[in-house]
Amino acid sequence: MIEITSLHNQLVKDIVHLRERKERDQTGQFLIEGFREIKRALEGDVQLEVLAFCPELFLGVNEPSLIAQCKQRNVKIVQFSQKAFSKISYRDRPDGLIAIARQMKWGLDDLKMRFQKDPFLIVAEAIEKPGNLGTILRSSDAVALDGVIVCDRCTDIFNPNVVRASVGTLFTRPVIETSSEEAFCFLRDNAIKVVAATPHAEKAFTRTDLTGPIAIVVGTEQLGLSKKWLENADMQVRIPMLGSADSLNVATATTLLLYEVLRQRSLYGA
Amino acid sequence: MIEITSLHNQLVKDIVHLRERKERDQTGQFLIEGFREIKRALEGDVQLEVLAFCPELFLGVNEPSLIAQCKQRNVKIVQFSQKAFSKISYRDRPDGLIAIARQMKWGLDDLKMRFQKDPFLIVAEAIEKPGNLGTILRSSDAVALDGVIVCDRCTDIFNPNVVRASVGTLFTRPVIETSSEEAFCFLRDNAIKVVAATPHAEKAFTRTDLTGPIAIVVGTEQLGLSKKWLENADMQVRIPMLGSADSLNVATATTLLLYEVLRQRSLYGA
Repeated sequence: MIEITSLHNQLVKDIVHLRERKERDQTGQFLIEGFREIKRALEGDVQLEVLAFCPELFLGVNEPSLIAQCKQRNVKIVQFSQKAFSKISYRDRPDGLIAIARQMKWGLDDLKMRFQKDPFLIVAEAIEKPGNLGTILRSSDAVALDGVIVCDRCTDIFNPNVVRASVGTLFTRPVIETSSEEAFCFLRDNAIKVVAATPHAEKAFTRTDLTGPIAIVVGTEQLGLSKKWLENADMQVRIPMLGSADSLNVATATTLLLYEVLRQRSLYGA
Repeated sequence: MIEITSLHNQLVKDIVHLRERKERDQTGQFLIEGFREIKRALEGDVQLEVLAFCPELFLGVNEPSLIAQCKQRNVKIVQFSQKAFSKISYRDRPDGLIAIARQMKWGLDDLKMRFQKDPFLIVAEAIEKPGNLGTILRSSDAVALDGVIVCDRCTDIFNPNVVRASVGTLFTRPVIETSSEEAFCFLRDNAIKVVAATPHAEKAFTRTDLTGPIAIVVGTEQLGLSKKWLENADMQVRIPMLGSADSLNVATATTLLLYEVLRQRSLYGA
């Protein structure tokens, strides 16, 4: 196998360009860096196109079997020198694995097909920071959510920092990008209760019935939810704020609501 | 008032240097950027030394009164041109205010003086990412925690990204940097129950009695809590993980535990 050592190699350039949204939108590709993340992508049947690896940087012993798995799926495998790999890596601590993957295109129908007794969803409206969106996805995986609907996107879900903060949980369940309008119709048509978190609500989230089919709606870091979602929500809940600040980090607030749903469901056997 | 326009001005250089930990450690100073953050610093009696401002970037109408407040406290006030300000700003959206402040030095005794009926603390061991530490502080403020003990620090609490992610809540309650050894003795001497979060615990956090004097202990992003804290904890609790990932973001996990304490305290009137 030929090893890529030149920083001017075309594949090096292609990978670096995929950090930019414009390039991702044009090519339909995106980057997945890290053993854990690529492993979850394979488990989630994400289509990988290229796997770049650098054995000197491997942290564990399972990398060769991951590479073998990729080979079986006809992924193009390319070895990199340490210097060339550090050029394509976007992590503080690279572990010697980066893949180019094809963007998944989930729709609301895919989501519906997965519904069991009580659908459990998040609607994330206009989240700006990739790290926050990734952390929301990571928490969604933890509570076995049916899926995440990303409305009126500000950051695209294929941003490398979304993939990283999600620790690859972006690949474990449907993440659908759509408009607020379509999302709202979908929820109404499927009789899913819309719960909006806002500091102006009367009832604390732990004192509100969150059982049954439910979608938790959360808004931007700066401004919170738009008027449309607030007005059309079936319920508004408040997270108690006892200090001097008037809000929590959006990913943190979302996770509190998700786990409260989980707590109530397990209490009432739903 | 003379306006600073040159990028080579010494104050511009001093402010930029304070982004580096070495400079902060040597000078005992740190940076606070943003209206909300500086306002909370004043409320928390943090000693400001210089206030840099740029009126063209102001977002609201209350900036002049904040500047007047600083003047009353003998803070040196310096106006910057937009170009010079953008050199010293470390935010995506600068709002025209940056202060140089003197580092607060809280000790465990300061913490003890604030204890009321049931002390409620976090011990954060060796957190690496400033954003995570800042988010933990923001959540600590939200549940009116008595204070945060940062052990065996990896990031210093005066890192600009800690200040930013904390939204200035770094100034609303004591944050103490110390060793694990000292923290552990302090908790034992004050009969505060140590609760460690670990995926290996039997009991879920919502099914564990978290009332009474309590310290929630959380560990590094990569490795979780050290053996010392795990072995010496009075209780171990688990956050249910129903998906493919085996952990949550550390700030998110911490916030879940904090709000569960709050829920139990309000239920049982503690």
